[in-house]
Amino acid sequence: MRLAGVRRMTVLIAIVSATNWAFAAATETCVACHGEAGISSNSVWPNIGGQKREYLVLQLKAFKTGKRTDVLMSPIAKMLSDSEIEELAEYYANLKGAQ
Amino acid sequence: MRLAGVRRMTVLIAIVSATNWAFAAATETCVACHGEAGISSNSVWPNIGGQKREYLVLQLKAFKTGKRTDVLMSPIAKMLSDSEIEELAEYYANLKGAQ
Repeated sequence: MRLAGVRRMTVLIAIVSATNWAFAAATETCVACHGEAGISSNSVWPNIGGQKREYLVLQLKAFKTGKRTDVLMSPIAKMLSDSEIEELAEYYANLKGAQ
Repeated sequence: MRLAGVRRMTVLIAIVSATNWAFAAATETCVACHGEAGISSNSVWPNIGGQKREYLVLQLKAFKTGKRTDVLMSPIAKMLSDSEIEELAEYYANLKGAQ
């Protein structure tokens, strides 16, 4: 009984770790162009910190499906699951915009 | 001589007024969706206050040429001259982003 509980806990920790790892990997890709705080390092890449959540979801999905195209964003968006897109949009929408 | 000077001044004022009017008309269109301060009134329209200048220019030109499409933005961008696009991008880039 105790062993079963430990196993369940181990599975739970593994799932949470995998989720966090995937999210960390995804944000690391974003950060390369859009910066740690969602403020981009050059003028042709958009700031995404403080951007509207639904807008971010729609644009990532547009890049994923090919409705919108960009040499950098298209291949990146194609690697994201819908739930990762939701998580990333939530994350960046909750940061502050440029001052 | 004095009359010629007055005429030049009148022409100059007329040009400046026409330019301001065109810019005011353009921003009024933007404001309807993107807000007075470039912060949109709903979650599917992007905040553009504090957005990168060059990014705004590129996106407006993409909507104008059809590289990027949107039911609202495409027809609006097609009405903008390249200099209006530059002015609008400069204006919104100098506002603050969402807090």
